[in-house]
Amino acid sequence: MRTLRQTLTALLLAAVTATAWSAETASQDSLQPLINAGDKKLAFDWPMVTIGTGEYAEGPTGVTVFRFARRVLAAVDVRGGGPGTVNTDYLRLGYNVPEVDTVVFSGGSWYGLESTTAAATALKDDGVRSGNWDNISLSVGAIIYDFGDRRLNEIYPDKRLAQAALRAAQPGVFPLGAQGAGRSARTGQFFGCNVHSGQGGAYRQVGPVKIAAFTVVNAFGVVTDRDGKVVACNPGANWPQPLRPTDLLAGMPDSRKPGWQPPKEAARNTTVSLIVVNQTLDPALLQRIAVQVHTSMARGLQPFATEYDGDVLYAISTGEVDDKTPGALASVDLGVIAGEVMWDAILSSVPEQPKAFQPNKRFKVAAADLQKYAGDYKFSDIVTVRVSAEGGKLVAQATGARDAFAIKKAAAVELQPVAQGDFTVPGRYPLNVRFADGKLILNPGHWEQIGVK
Amino acid sequence: MRTLRQTLTALLLAAVTATAWSAETASQDSLQPLINAGDKKLAFDWPMVTIGTGEYAEGPTGVTVFRFARRVLAAVDVRGGGPGTVNTDYLRLGYNVPEVDTVVFSGGSWYGLESTTAAATALKDDGVRSGNWDNISLSVGAIIYDFGDRRLNEIYPDKRLAQAALRAAQPGVFPLGAQGAGRSARTGQFFGCNVHSGQGGAYRQVGPVKIAAFTVVNAFGVVTDRDGKVVACNPGANWPQPLRPTDLLAGMPDSRKPGWQPPKEAARNTTVSLIVVNQTLDPALLQRIAVQVHTSMARGLQPFATEYDGDVLYAISTGEVDDKTPGALASVDLGVIAGEVMWDAILSSVPEQPKAFQPNKRFKVAAADLQKYAGDYKFSDIVTVRVSAEGGKLVAQATGARDAFAIKKAAAVELQPVAQGDFTVPGRYPLNVRFADGKLILNPGHWEQIGVK
Amino acid sequence: MRTLRQTLTALLLAAVTATAWSAETASQDSLQPLINAGDKKLAFDWPMVTIGTGEYAEGPTGVTVFRFARRVLAAVDVRGGGPGTVNTDYLRLGYNVPEVDTVVFSGGSWYGLESTTAAATALKDDGVRSGNWDNISLSVGAIIYDFGDRRLNEIYPDKRLAQAALRAAQPGVFPLGAQGAGRSARTGQFFGCNVHSGQGGAYRQVGPVKIAAFTVVNAFGVVTDRDGKVVACNPGANWPQPLRPTDLLAGMPDSRKPGWQPPKEAARNTTVSLIVVNQTLDPALLQRIAVQVHTSMARGLQPFATEYDGDVLYAISTGEVDDKTPGALASVDLGVIAGEVMWDAILSSVPEQPKAFQPNKRFKVAAADLQKYAGDYKFSDIVTVRVSAEGGKLVAQATGARDAFAIKKAAAVELQPVAQGDFTVPGRYPLNVRFADGKLILNPGHWEQIGVK
Amino acid sequence: MRTLRQTLTALLLAAVTATAWSAETASQDSLQPLINAGDKKLAFDWPMVTIGTGEYAEGPTGVTVFRFARRVLAAVDVRGGGPGTVNTDYLRLGYNVPEVDTVVFSGGSWYGLESTTAAATALKDDGVRSGNWDNISLSVGAIIYDFGDRRLNEIYPDKRLAQAALRAAQPGVFPLGAQGAGRSARTGQFFGCNVHSGQGGAYRQVGPVKIAAFTVVNAFGVVTDRDGKVVACNPGANWPQPLRPTDLLAGMPDSRKPGWQPPKEAARNTTVSLIVVNQTLDPALLQRIAVQVHTSMARGLQPFATEYDGDVLYAISTGEVDDKTPGALASVDLGVIAGEVMWDAILSSVPEQPKAFQPNKRFKVAAADLQKYAGDYKFSDIVTVRVSAEGGKLVAQATGARDAFAIKKAAAVELQPVAQGDFTVPGRYPLNVRFADGKLILNPGHWEQIGVK
Repeated sequence: MRTLRQTLTALLLAAVTATAWSAETASQDSLQPLINAGDKKLAFDWPMVTIGTGEYAEGPTGVTVFRFARRVLAAVDVRGGGPGTVNTDYLRLGYNVPEVDTVVFSGGSWYGLESTTAAATALKDDGVRSGNWDNISLSVGAIIYDFGDRRLNEIYPDKRLAQAALRAAQPGVFPLGAQGAGRSARTGQFFGCNVHSGQGGAYRQVGPVKIAAFTVVNAFGVVTDRDGKVVACNPGANWPQPLRPTDLLAGMPDSRKPGWQPPKEAARNTTVSLIVVNQTLDPALLQRIAVQVHTSMARGLQPFATEYDGDVLYAISTGEVDDKTPGALASVDLGVIAGEVMWDAILSSVPEQPKAFQPNKRFKVAAADLQKYAGDYKFSDIVTVRVSAEGGKLVAQATGARDAFAIKKAAAVELQPVAQGDFTVPGRYPLNVRFADGKLILNPGHWEQIGVK
Repeated sequence: MRTLRQTLTALLLAAVTATAWSAETASQDSLQPLINAGDKKLAFDWPMVTIGTGEYAEGPTGVTVFRFARRVLAAVDVRGGGPGTVNTDYLRLGYNVPEVDTVVFSGGSWYGLESTTAAATALKDDGVRSGNWDNISLSVGAIIYDFGDRRLNEIYPDKRLAQAALRAAQPGVFPLGAQGAGRSARTGQFFGCNVHSGQGGAYRQVGPVKIAAFTVVNAFGVVTDRDGKVVACNPGANWPQPLRPTDLLAGMPDSRKPGWQPPKEAARNTTVSLIVVNQTLDPALLQRIAVQVHTSMARGLQPFATEYDGDVLYAISTGEVDDKTPGALASVDLGVIAGEVMWDAILSSVPEQPKAFQPNKRFKVAAADLQKYAGDYKFSDIVTVRVSAEGGKLVAQATGARDAFAIKKAAAVELQPVAQGDFTVPGRYPLNVRFADGKLILNPGHWEQIGVK
Repeated sequence: MRTLRQTLTALLLAAVTATAWSAETASQDSLQPLINAGDKKLAFDWPMVTIGTGEYAEGPTGVTVFRFARRVLAAVDVRGGGPGTVNTDYLRLGYNVPEVDTVVFSGGSWYGLESTTAAATALKDDGVRSGNWDNISLSVGAIIYDFGDRRLNEIYPDKRLAQAALRAAQPGVFPLGAQGAGRSARTGQFFGCNVHSGQGGAYRQVGPVKIAAFTVVNAFGVVTDRDGKVVACNPGANWPQPLRPTDLLAGMPDSRKPGWQPPKEAARNTTVSLIVVNQTLDPALLQRIAVQVHTSMARGLQPFATEYDGDVLYAISTGEVDDKTPGALASVDLGVIAGEVMWDAILSSVPEQPKAFQPNKRFKVAAADLQKYAGDYKFSDIVTVRVSAEGGKLVAQATGARDAFAIKKAAAVELQPVAQGDFTVPGRYPLNVRFADGKLILNPGHWEQIGVK
Repeated sequence: MRTLRQTLTALLLAAVTATAWSAETASQDSLQPLINAGDKKLAFDWPMVTIGTGEYAEGPTGVTVFRFARRVLAAVDVRGGGPGTVNTDYLRLGYNVPEVDTVVFSGGSWYGLESTTAAATALKDDGVRSGNWDNISLSVGAIIYDFGDRRLNEIYPDKRLAQAALRAAQPGVFPLGAQGAGRSARTGQFFGCNVHSGQGGAYRQVGPVKIAAFTVVNAFGVVTDRDGKVVACNPGANWPQPLRPTDLLAGMPDSRKPGWQPPKEAARNTTVSLIVVNQTLDPALLQRIAVQVHTSMARGLQPFATEYDGDVLYAISTGEVDDKTPGALASVDLGVIAGEVMWDAILSSVPEQPKAFQPNKRFKVAAADLQKYAGDYKFSDIVTVRVSAEGGKLVAQATGARDAFAIKKAAAVELQPVAQGDFTVPGRYPLNVRFADGKLILNPGHWEQIGVK
């Protein structure tokens, strides 16, 4: 005992020092989790698959947790050039034993992997799983990059948010669009389309076989429909309509040049996906489903699996329908159909894009208002915008570490009047600007960023 | 704006509900981190490699964080049948770009992976890294299983502990033995040796080339020295001395039978290792070092890489010495020497084993004391021990979900008197028992478990 | 010396016995290699890339050998459910050293892998490479399945054929369509399209960067153009025109049922591909090109990478243009463009399909001719067709181990007259039948199978 | 038909040209296969496992073919830095379907892979397997490097030799030592031990469970016994006895310097191994056996899995004993025992080393004999030795592309008299020299190399 006590005493100083962290990590503690948010939802009848989402509106960013009503068999296919994953090595061993409790997709890039481990510990804390060797919770997951020019802060989905989402998981309901892990997703940067994206889901039942596909679409490429058209894009000048990825791609590199060159600073994307079937499958055949479905996504996302994507797909078999059951699908057919369900899921991920404010040249802003709007607005430790009234005009310039969308550090830009309190910075990527309650709101609405004086 | 506000309102109920989690996850919040504990330490001169450990004595369990003074190139080799890992997929892409900030080893099985993500977020919170695509913190890690019959609770190294360890990291100091991630490690279960283990480290400099090896030895096999002898074991009856693994293994299955059959319930182990060199290496050659060193460990741990091990090894090149520098090692020589340094590290992991109390038949416990000792002692939600005085003797029986070492649920066992307040349950795995301050302390000392009435 | 002599004597009997094999393996020795056959060829200006093809018309089957003028860096991506490969493990080590001499694609399923090793030994025999550790020839390769119901024999591309093709390799010329390894390729079996396929190639130069794509398309899926249409198919009854894979796939399983269920016996396919660039790339980025291009092929082949495909893609960098050269492409752009060149290659693989004979009800076959045509025609050890004259009609039935296309073992089928000596068995897969010179020629023309009495 | 005929005509020239190869590939046709050679054999009772070896004494080099009486389940573990393999990608898919017919190990480096494909085609030619999708022969294999300074020619085990070995395969007999694929194997180059090696085999039955291990030991490291001693080595001057690898390795780099630095030119080695069990195992557990056994070999071969080794291990389950059968082994125990059987196999691979001729200073060679011995002796296209009589002494110098063991190109070396016709070049690697029948025989005996004037 002597040694222990000595040690304890000796360590007190270190321990006390170490607790200094609390102030710093507390930074996200005041954020309010939004649970299962979203107006548009996929509904399906499958009690085994429960889903919970959590979001921090201040990011915005979020997490999507898939929790299975019992342990399930899983496989993984990593296809992208920059993945962030947890526990894939275990899956690769190919044991024919269902062990996965949860699949967690999260924003926040590698920081968001905290969400995956959080799901496991929550199940332990809640007494569902334990430390017994045969009852340890296995959570696997992957993340998307939703920092950079997507938003003006570095809030990430943390343990608290993920556990709240897990505990609120419901069967058969999946929020579509810019919700959960897809809260600040974006697509099309390869062509400069740069549109808001989100998470998609689709479900199909064929006889006794159930198939659900989920995907958080944050692709470098563009979402493409079955007619070969781009589903959403901020197009370059003089781009053809309808816009077909194959035309753009076949014409590379010329087809991109008029539009845009992807800036290096923003070159991080990722599509993370999950395919779930209720039919039993040998590990090798489940792996095959993962490979086949993941590959098939190259049709709905073009280009796909690039160096700047970190694409990961998990495949799950809940094992509720034996593959000898009448109506069970041949594995190759199951894979083909699953690929189609996944394409449906991709298409369902696209949210309604925000409407751009239109500059109103006849609208005059009162001088008093100009003065009222002027000031330094802080969005986060890394982004501050200085608004100034100059010659009857309002101009804005970023003064922190980074740009604020169309408001750059390099030079001030005019905020063109739209209506009382509303302004715009037009362009390929128009910026909606609103002053309200002494705050500066960029892109008011679902993706708004709020700066305070 | 309307939609957002509606959404916000609608979600308040869900959000409030979700916050109910706080009470539960708070369960480890009262634990006091012990930082950089341990009397026996490896010291070496290499500012690039800083190390911090954190422990919860109540587990005991802990975490070991390796933080590099700048980003380093990393490779990984997974060799075991039950690994728990974070971000290995990224390493496998083999980019020739240093990106790893930290390598984190942790107890707590898959729950302990929280420690790996915690290191990354701490660097972000501290402003060292950010969400910029080229400055995101990459933390990789692996865990060991230290639950089951190793200890009587399910405390795991959490975010708070890992971040404290990270922030206390020091260059050139590595605690040896049952510290950090190796706090409750064990080896030799394959033969029933079941001895305490820990973390080991070793360092060698050859000309300009620095090599450091670290390993948390929690192997199913036994630690074996260069003379081929078992370093630590609770031997079976009539086992030969000196005990050589090759003799035991060559005689399998007979050589094990007299001793012991490994219980399924305890069949989880893992050795997680790290080899660091300062010489630049192409990704393929760094991978080669990982493979070669990991394979070489089969000499110092026998058997190794079994189904019940989750062995993972990370290899790091800090890139401080160009491979064209005079004195730089041929990669094959570097790999061989690194394997030897790793063997040294394995050997240094073995802590001094606790001394078993010796029953003293002449020592009579006073009847009043017997009554005083009697009662239900709770060690955790899963383990409770009932102590009863029967016929002048003290007996104990586990009454919770699990056994308490030699105190089983199946039947009461006598606590044989040793001295005032001290008892023992003799056997191949003797249990030291102490009553003090109204508590029941099993195995008092470094690995003690405390039950309270 | 004594021991050796004794041994030699003792072994003579065994050696003699062993030479009995010669008669059997001689079976392909009488076949005449056709070298660099084909009317339609891709021409491109790139001396580094030389190509030779070899074919046995009697199969028909063949081999395509890519030989590089100097050693090149290679990567591989295996994506299918039934690959056959040589030396991919070496490539996976990711050394940044060019070592590959040849890439060999071959028919003949796993037997055709002999073609890959043959290329290496030919370079040794020719003195280009040797047994010196730094001058050993590295040949990698993959095969397609072109047996089963594709042809009526089991001839495979052997060492002799592959070495002849290698030695006839020419720069900048690649035969398109049903030539080389694609001699008996087929596509579309998933939908029952079952059309002849072949090998495709395409080339593009962007500034200093050269990109060539080659593929042997033997896919379970159908070739799909950039307008989303099936390029070639024997359609099912009442199938829509134009035929779009997405329509068929989205409607699965119903969309396939009216047409066809793929018979298990024919369920082997494979697309093997090669992408070559002249720009230097780190091994990891070359691997990325392999992954990205292979994935992108899911657009031009639908479905792709199924359980019944053995898809393999090799990526090669000849390293002629440094990636720092003005005009060198960003690797992500290079990957995108390479994917488009590969799509062009897929499209170029489709040969002109044979014209079906039309039954002519007014054409009467002379009785003497009927008798003349009757008899047993042997196509190979596994296929024999019995032609009989019954009631003024000619009928045919397979009597060997296997069916002969529409001439089944189960029952005789009428050969409907077309013209003098020509007959047909109509159906979704019409069979052209010709009697000439005492032989029975099925599908006379490029894919003809000849039976002799 | 027109097109085909035109094509045929057009191709005749090319075809004729192509047949010019026949002369060149004929170079090994005169070699006589030695089948199942060797005096020392492992015998075991297991009809399912048949083995045939083929050798070309002129190499010497050879092939070892394992043919299973029915299709078996296989897994593979690649661990070395320079492997040569066939069809491992298929095994990695992990289907739970036995498909492997043969495992082939061969000398001849990458050229020897021809032996693997040859085994498959022989089974097809013999009618055992066919081109039917469900009856294609699957042969997997790996090779060792036995060129370089191991022998003076580039003969490799070819299709003819491998098929002869396959057809002569016998159950339960495995030649030990320098036979089959291990005919010119060598070990210990890392330390300059440079001793002849070979193939080893061992067998153990535990209740109903049969385990056989086979390995062709051509390791960069040294064979080490269970007492930790080097089994065979040409030791450096003043090296300790007994020689323990751990001593040498722990002292690296100093421990090697007095002895030797491995020349780059010779830096290719490889140990290829096979473990066979009769118990059924899931693919994942069979893979585990492969990993565990391969890793365990680091004890018997030190160092192991280096950059200069191409180590590959196949694991086979014949599936004769269900894992539910009484006496079936737990997979972890099976893996441990298999590792011990493999160690036995390694030890059995070491052949008796040749005795060095002792120089006899009193023996005087007649002047006439000196003149008779003089001349140019050609061993192969790459090695010629010029013997000259100078001042009553005989000297020798290599004049071709490469050295002839101790007879170097750099300078002439004296051949010291031993006895009539016998000479020696003493040194750490003494060279036995014999003149007989007008030939120059280097190292007369099992590994002799014969030069002709």
